Amino acid sequence: MTAQDILERLRGDRRALPRLATLVENNDLRGLEALDALYGATGQAHVVGITGPPGVGKSSLIASLVERIRASERRVAVLAVDPSSPLTGGAVLGDRIRMMGRHADPDVFVRSMASRGRQGGLAWTTASLVHLLDAAGFPFILVETVGTGQDGTDIASLADTVMVVQAPGLGDGVQAIKAGLLEVGDVVVVNKSDQPGAGDTIRLLRSAFALAHPTTARVVPILATTAVDGAGVAELLAAIDDHAAWLDSEGERTHRREQRARTEVLAGIRAALDAKLQGLPHDSGALRAAVARVVNKEQSPRRAVASILAALEDP
Amino acid sequence: MTAQDILERLRGDRRALPRLATLVENNDLRGLEALDALYGATGQAHVVGITGPPGVGKSSLIASLVERIRASERRVAVLAVDPSSPLTGGAVLGDRIRMMGRHADPDVFVRSMASRGRQGGLAWTTASLVHLLDAAGFPFILVETVGTGQDGTDIASLADTVMVVQAPGLGDGVQAIKAGLLEVGDVVVVNKSDQPGAGDTIRLLRSAFALAHPTTARVVPILATTAVDGAGVAELLAAIDDHAAWLDSEGERTHRREQRARTEVLAGIRAALDAKLQGLPHDSGALRAAVARVVNKEQSPRRAVASILAALEDP
Repeated sequence: MTAQDILERLRGDRRALPRLATLVENNDLRGLEALDALYGATGQAHVVGITGPPGVGKSSLIASLVERIRASERRVAVLAVDPSSPLTGGAVLGDRIRMMGRHADPDVFVRSMASRGRQGGLAWTTASLVHLLDAAGFPFILVETVGTGQDGTDIASLADTVMVVQAPGLGDGVQAIKAGLLEVGDVVVVNKSDQPGAGDTIRLLRSAFALAHPTTARVVPILATTAVDGAGVAELLAAIDDHAAWLDSEGERTHRREQRARTEVLAGIRAALDAKLQGLPHDSGALRAAVARVVNKEQSPRRAVASILAALEDP
Repeated sequence: MTAQDILERLRGDRRALPRLATLVENNDLRGLEALDALYGATGQAHVVGITGPPGVGKSSLIASLVERIRASERRVAVLAVDPSSPLTGGAVLGDRIRMMGRHADPDVFVRSMASRGRQGGLAWTTASLVHLLDAAGFPFILVETVGTGQDGTDIASLADTVMVVQAPGLGDGVQAIKAGLLEVGDVVVVNKSDQPGAGDTIRLLRSAFALAHPTTARVVPILATTAVDGAGVAELLAAIDDHAAWLDSEGERTHRREQRARTEVLAGIRAALDAKLQGLPHDSGALRAAVARVVNKEQSPRRAVASILAALEDP
């Protein structure tokens, strides 16, 4: 099928997009080849990465933001990348969207991706799904992630705008600084701003960002929201739109797209190498033997690793 | 130097251990070879992995636990693995221990490892430092980590006892379930138990664990602590000691040590492959060219990755 055929099917049949997404998630060659064909049609969407620790209310905030984006007459897709146990697998966001009655809105698409069992390949699969949603004609794509570890950092780097969400009382913003979020945030939100301590958290984050970026060309906005009643969410969407406009006016978008492509290609290489590793345990007597030597103190872990690597290079 | 020489130096000179740890952390061959030599002297320590989201008070709880371990006349080493920005790099725990006046106690050793820039190799380096502390004669080793992502999971798997720390009000324990902590916790602690909602959080975790492990041989204890005044910390140490005794009585320790060795060897392979990837960006025209093709929509990311992998296999 040509890209045109696939695009027509995506537009004509509501079930086509989730089906194709499943094929891509499962690394099914039919999905991957469709995505190859569609790739030329990507690059239209503005991708917002939404990151922050558990408990700050990211899902509620995204549900609120979706309402606001729809009020501005734009289509929006949400991809929730959730390092969940299979028990709850990203169900929260979907539930919130359903409660808002948006599940019947053809201009809102929500997809949850459970990360269990796909460590290492998570950023890669996320990037692929973002391309799919982009080609499917969503001008706004929100990607929710718990931003820690290599995957979290990679997923943030796959966005045009990185939105960092915090809440009062979670170590008063110190944790945001510890998690290295100063380095990646384009827009910072203190959600649950009706809770005590919100003002202190905002002030601390302002000082920290000013210290971290003393000479930056752009001041990172630090906003207060209350997702449950929607307070501050209009201002948040305006700040995201402002950042998008800034990317275009300063020629930053091209630079960022290059970074995105580089992160994606490296994530793809990492995923491929990880897939090789995942295959190793079952088919490699070399690995089992090496582990036994380590357990029996016959060989240090470093020497065991060296012997496996030698076997991998020269099987 | 033989293992005996190195061990004598470690015991005779207080500065020898931190120096050797630095060599190991920096992948300095002198450190790595010393560790190879020492490896036969490891396997005596009980390793406790301490994991939980930011903001639950892990550092304070560990400081309290260190006091309690010292009261039981045991030496203890603490390794804080902190996915920090360079701004705060794991300083919190060190500060707490210093406040307690334990910095002068030769039977307490605290080491912080910043994780920035060592993604992928973090679990591997952690395992190496644990071996060093084990060989240096610490019967109790506490490893603190923010438990998310592959590194978090790997670091937890490197422990004999995995202690999961939660606090009330962080999504009431639901987040622990989402983060997949049900699958790894041997001992669960609700810290800050003087705060409102602690009872609810404990009850929710109890039900969740009962659901997740309906037929488990061992009931996972769910304890309440208040690190600031030490409430519940004696019970926590007793629960850790109970788990250690259970490992020995049920023959579980051998099984776990095998798992640890396997995780460590795989982490070592991953670290080596990652190091290869880290080297790639600067010396590879192939990568730059592939990224350019992706940016210009001449090639899909998947095909670009395939071309790089082909170049890696056959340079």
